[in-house]
Amino acid sequence: MNPKQSGRRRFLKGGPLLAAGLAVGSIPVLSGRSQTPEDEPPQRSSKSRNSYGERSRFENFSQRRLGGHLSRDYGFRNPMQDQLGIITPVPLHFILDHDRSLEGLPNDPPDLDPKTHRLLIHGMVDRPLTLSLDDLKRLPSVTRFHFLECNANGNPTGPNGEPRRAVTATAQDTHGLTSCSLWTGVPLPLLLEKAGVQKSATWIEAEGAESEHHTKSIPMQKVMDDCLVVYGQNGEAVRPEQGYPMRLFVPGYEGINNVKWLRRIKIVDEPYMGMLETTVYPSLRVDGKSRWFQFEMGPKSVITRPSGGQQLAGAGFYEISGLAWSGGGKVRRVEVSTDSGKTWKDAQLQDPIASKSHTRFVFPWEWNGQETSILSRCTDERNMVQPTKEEFANLFKISVDYFVTGANQINHFNAIQPWKIGSGGSVTNPLFV
Amino acid sequence: MNPKQSGRRRFLKGGPLLAAGLAVGSIPVLSGRSQTPEDEPPQRSSKSRNSYGERSRFENFSQRRLGGHLSRDYGFRNPMQDQLGIITPVPLHFILDHDRSLEGLPNDPPDLDPKTHRLLIHGMVDRPLTLSLDDLKRLPSVTRFHFLECNANGNPTGPNGEPRRAVTATAQDTHGLTSCSLWTGVPLPLLLEKAGVQKSATWIEAEGAESEHHTKSIPMQKVMDDCLVVYGQNGEAVRPEQGYPMRLFVPGYEGINNVKWLRRIKIVDEPYMGMLETTVYPSLRVDGKSRWFQFEMGPKSVITRPSGGQQLAGAGFYEISGLAWSGGGKVRRVEVSTDSGKTWKDAQLQDPIASKSHTRFVFPWEWNGQETSILSRCTDERNMVQPTKEEFANLFKISVDYFVTGANQINHFNAIQPWKIGSGGSVTNPLFV
Repeated sequence: MNPKQSGRRRFLKGGPLLAAGLAVGSIPVLSGRSQTPEDEPPQRSSKSRNSYGERSRFENFSQRRLGGHLSRDYGFRNPMQDQLGIITPVPLHFILDHDRSLEGLPNDPPDLDPKTHRLLIHGMVDRPLTLSLDDLKRLPSVTRFHFLECNANGNPTGPNGEPRRAVTATAQDTHGLTSCSLWTGVPLPLLLEKAGVQKSATWIEAEGAESEHHTKSIPMQKVMDDCLVVYGQNGEAVRPEQGYPMRLFVPGYEGINNVKWLRRIKIVDEPYMGMLETTVYPSLRVDGKSRWFQFEMGPKSVITRPSGGQQLAGAGFYEISGLAWSGGGKVRRVEVSTDSGKTWKDAQLQDPIASKSHTRFVFPWEWNGQETSILSRCTDERNMVQPTKEEFANLFKISVDYFVTGANQINHFNAIQPWKIGSGGSVTNPLFV
Repeated sequence: MNPKQSGRRRFLKGGPLLAAGLAVGSIPVLSGRSQTPEDEPPQRSSKSRNSYGERSRFENFSQRRLGGHLSRDYGFRNPMQDQLGIITPVPLHFILDHDRSLEGLPNDPPDLDPKTHRLLIHGMVDRPLTLSLDDLKRLPSVTRFHFLECNANGNPTGPNGEPRRAVTATAQDTHGLTSCSLWTGVPLPLLLEKAGVQKSATWIEAEGAESEHHTKSIPMQKVMDDCLVVYGQNGEAVRPEQGYPMRLFVPGYEGINNVKWLRRIKIVDEPYMGMLETTVYPSLRVDGKSRWFQFEMGPKSVITRPSGGQQLAGAGFYEISGLAWSGGGKVRRVEVSTDSGKTWKDAQLQDPIASKSHTRFVFPWEWNGQETSILSRCTDERNMVQPTKEEFANLFKISVDYFVTGANQINHFNAIQPWKIGSGGSVTNPLFV
């Protein structure tokens, strides 16, 4: 018997256990240990284990402040270029809070105690409800992949658009106001059924518990389709910056609808016209009227690897990998071009492909070392296709110059993102050059 | 115009934008703000935002030391009772490292720099390979849901089994040596193809970079079926305790096969007979021989809510929710009994249902306030059924008393877990009473 075994013989001695399986009556000689590339034993990490784990000190990618003139303590972009698969690690989920930032105040999340926090459902209902987190957790729950996205994600105009327009932009700069999680919660229709919603109700007003009480109107049709009150994110409680202990979730709609720190849902028959419905979010039309209540995010995609700021090591094989999503449902197809848009081929979509969720696509690429651009184009299950920058400008009857010189914020910007590969392997953003 | 709007008029003024959608030519009067359950504005969290987010201070569930005589700095159990959906938050993933602990030494993970770490693939190959993390990330990648589980998870015997046998046991105590993640990496067959594996090769030896160089043998058939070298976990880099910067992943097999800090794969034609293959992991049979190389984890399930240590608030509706998994493939069916095992009904399995992955099941339950036990039973896609404690004992030709009095470790213990609901709403573990 090998001497290494003796120390643990008490686990083996005299046991009555019998099991089917491979039985070995004698022990072969241990084979020798071979030489390895680094035979110096590595140092142990100096940090002792605690009861809540930490990243490697070599992994330092992080959220990034918004840049432009909104570089106050206002929000963070998700470092998408470093994300793997389709879920965003919760500590790196993008953050954007409007109300308080508009006053120039610091934007720490409210410190809500789940034992005392309550959700009130009232208005045009037969039986107003007051629900604690424990009450919610007793009810039928669902867990779903869904992305969140700010309607200004990718906005190139004005000083806010600076980081996105830069030649040096990363995927975090160009697309970092979206993230994707596995959300757990209770279908909102179930709560409204318990409350007895009256037939003439057509909207809900949802209100947060932060001191500014951000309030948003959602049409009843969308509520009854797929809205949720969520308390879980990627297996754990929703993080404070994401609405702890509960938030409204409105799949595929502009982020601002997904009211955090949810404390009140009023059932009504007209929209509330809250601050962020009457400012910032409407867009002026050329006829002088406003476009109001544009909710749904369009089809979009971005190659995350290789992407802006990365460096290719030289000609050879590279897997192109990226994320695609649409507020209109599932991603049906992603095409990739590696010759600056001349030809396109289907990328492979990786499971799971969920509705209103980030979807991972991959595409094999043998780089010949020559300068080129790589691009991706998303088509969703309703056959909505992600436009080029020129097609997007045509839709809005503006010149492409407006993306650089324009004063007004362009929301829902979902143009195809090219990444330019230099002959030396540099990766840059040529979209606004 | 409402005065609240004026501050942001610059976003709206004089824009040329035109879009289809709901157009509103005049602005309705703001509706009044209603009374809410708590009109005192909550305190802001005192902690400023940093670039890597943190949990709410009210969320303090954590990993737990193993208990029994293995309560050294040896590993942690996953608090499954608080987990939502099917992925385990990476900071709460269970941890179990053997080699160093067996010497009574502290078990901090090695501090590996991904710029210098290399994976060597050698032995019975035509072209030995040395791969950096960057090399791996250029190759075709997959992202898959998979559980990991220690073969001793749920082991009730001996001093190690104390926490699991206790009437006060939680799901963390009874089942916390399993976790589930979305793993991202490169299929190992692709790497072996690059290296040119010779036809007579039948096993691999995988070796870690920690100072003890844990080494494990895997049959080539399994390697070519679905093994991976993974560098991503739940969207981010694998954590140090889970093998940063890369680990072997062997879906559905005992956790010990999934070599962390992977630095070497040697292609061979016989098993290595490493320390943990020749001690601890074999089980003695009644004929005096050992059962060796038992790899696959059987079908198992546990109700996580309500579960041990929780408290029901009184009679009424409760969703029963739990996790099921099998090393044999997908979970096909989970049945739940709410009358101490007399009758069983199918639970609903929630998407996604992935192979060799935790799967969430839910079951609606109206509790009448009387004492009872609730149980769950898993059937996998090969129609393997989770046994009762008595059926498990029969399989191993032991008395059920052995679970309490026996001296030998019982591995692969996958008996049905009952939770006893007291008439006062207490939830306890009656399995070994």
